[in-house]
Amino acid sequence: MNETPTASLTEIRDLLGQFSGPDQAAANAAAAREKTLTKPRGSLGLLEGLAAWVASWQGRHPPRLERPRVAVFAGNHGVARHGISAYPAEVTAQMVENFQNGGAAVNQLCQTFDAELRVYEMALECPTADFTEAPALSEEECARAMAYGMMSVEEGVDVICLGEMGIGNTTSAAAVSCALFGGEPHEWTGPGTGVADNVLQRKIDVVAAGLAQHKKALGDPFEIMRCLGGHELAAIAGAVIAARIGRVPVILDGYTATAAAAVLHKIDDAALDHCIVGHLSAEPPHRRLLELLGKSSLLDLDMRLGEASGAVMALGILRGAVACHNGMASFAEAKVSEKI
Amino acid sequence: MNETPTASLTEIRDLLGQFSGPDQAAANAAAAREKTLTKPRGSLGLLEGLAAWVASWQGRHPPRLERPRVAVFAGNHGVARHGISAYPAEVTAQMVENFQNGGAAVNQLCQTFDAELRVYEMALECPTADFTEAPALSEEECARAMAYGMMSVEEGVDVICLGEMGIGNTTSAAAVSCALFGGEPHEWTGPGTGVADNVLQRKIDVVAAGLAQHKKALGDPFEIMRCLGGHELAAIAGAVIAARIGRVPVILDGYTATAAAAVLHKIDDAALDHCIVGHLSAEPPHRRLLELLGKSSLLDLDMRLGEASGAVMALGILRGAVACHNGMASFAEAKVSEKI
Repeated sequence: MNETPTASLTEIRDLLGQFSGPDQAAANAAAAREKTLTKPRGSLGLLEGLAAWVASWQGRHPPRLERPRVAVFAGNHGVARHGISAYPAEVTAQMVENFQNGGAAVNQLCQTFDAELRVYEMALECPTADFTEAPALSEEECARAMAYGMMSVEEGVDVICLGEMGIGNTTSAAAVSCALFGGEPHEWTGPGTGVADNVLQRKIDVVAAGLAQHKKALGDPFEIMRCLGGHELAAIAGAVIAARIGRVPVILDGYTATAAAAVLHKIDDAALDHCIVGHLSAEPPHRRLLELLGKSSLLDLDMRLGEASGAVMALGILRGAVACHNGMASFAEAKVSEKI
Repeated sequence: MNETPTASLTEIRDLLGQFSGPDQAAANAAAAREKTLTKPRGSLGLLEGLAAWVASWQGRHPPRLERPRVAVFAGNHGVARHGISAYPAEVTAQMVENFQNGGAAVNQLCQTFDAELRVYEMALECPTADFTEAPALSEEECARAMAYGMMSVEEGVDVICLGEMGIGNTTSAAAVSCALFGGEPHEWTGPGTGVADNVLQRKIDVVAAGLAQHKKALGDPFEIMRCLGGHELAAIAGAVIAARIGRVPVILDGYTATAAAAVLHKIDDAALDHCIVGHLSAEPPHRRLLELLGKSSLLDLDMRLGEASGAVMALGILRGAVACHNGMASFAEAKVSEKI
């Protein structure tokens, strides 16, 4: 993260004011083409809307999926010291090495769906502060992490899947979600890597303690991110911002990635219009979070791994959608009779 | 269909008695490996069970998806004369040509998910008899169609997606389903290619007339197929049988394909254990049919195209599942700490 360009949180926040909407010309071109294709109208269901969505956010027709990127941000969390995960904090760095060696689930999925994987290791030796005692990140750290995330949206990338790895980060996701949308800590806290009973209760208590500690800061979404989030959550929010500006459609992974993006939604409820949610996480609060964001997931496969795995599965669906839209013959080309 | 080997319906039915179950050794090997992989146990959700399912029905571990085949059977229906589709009957042959020229949705999806497409044109110039007046197929025709379907399961194919094309065949699917499982014709009849109001009512009436015409034959599932089905439905049932014997896992497409396979389930409720249903069709009765078969679909993307499109989308999910199972590193290999 040493070479990250500096930007203040205020400068980054100001970028949200520059967001533009979908490209109507591309959307219209997609709708016009869709009607000509050799199938009953509407019979490809969500695939039809997905192809149009890609076109409208790429700002071009036909849409293209020639260089999908999968960005996995990894960070460590001070709250891990409370023993709120089924795995020790060292696993974050060990899994990063596993990603680099090609041994994780996301590696296999990137190969299956032909996507380029980039793993962003974020100061793993410097966990965030324990948010039950202090803000997780300083202003500078939070801004740097967001700017670092923005760098993942490089020129030429035409869709980006955003995911994370970080022991303790579903605790962060729970605290951020609860701070953004209210409700009780237990409603936002799930088993994560697989905790139950006493450990789950401790996780809920840690979330509650974090919310109490930062009570005064919780009116501001960026402060929620800074006080309760983490390096990888801030990076995901940054990547979502950069993708909007760069006209790159986004596939969000599960609970943690969605919670990170939700910070932007709280500021501007159109801020995530260029994002879809790849899958419904088995982490129970994800469903509620999606309802509050007005989003539905493409897939529901009972997955709860993180590391962008659900987002990459959904990339497969997107590939199918764009392939049909771009490659099918028209009724006229194929000499197929139209509706009676 | 000229070179189809001959077999009687009785001989084909007898094959169901030879069905064997899943390979327990392969299933055990899959379960043992799954536990070692670098992820919280269960965190890949349905993907874990899918990899084990492929292994157990292929009868080998690791499972392999090196030669997936997509078989689309096309047939014409005498009942189409009642005007129960939004498209003229000529569209069946026109779409077969579109498949052959690479212009249909299924062509793009086979390319996306790297599957070999075979289109089986079944005597399109000889539609089935109008089932409101006579059995759709003679015994010989039905047996020949089933045997023809069996031929699609060639040596070396390691998973098969089964789909269909045939103007009028959701009417057939409705009649077959209603005959197998009871209830009222309107409960089993959907809009198909997109009919509504008067045309939908006519479609329901045609289903009711078919059931009344063949009332005496409906105690026997094979007779239901013969009297109310069609060439492509019989072929799908045949392919399901051959796949079971050849240890090839099956992905069924939507309503029509599932109705065809349901005929076998009615004879033996374990007959479809080697089959999954790729997606939930937007054709409303598909949901009910799946409930009665005790199956849930992998995907729910509001699709209702047929031509195996939903099954091929689900092949993408299966590819992800098998890739993770076979390619991930173990905790020991990757030196990742296990659960505390």
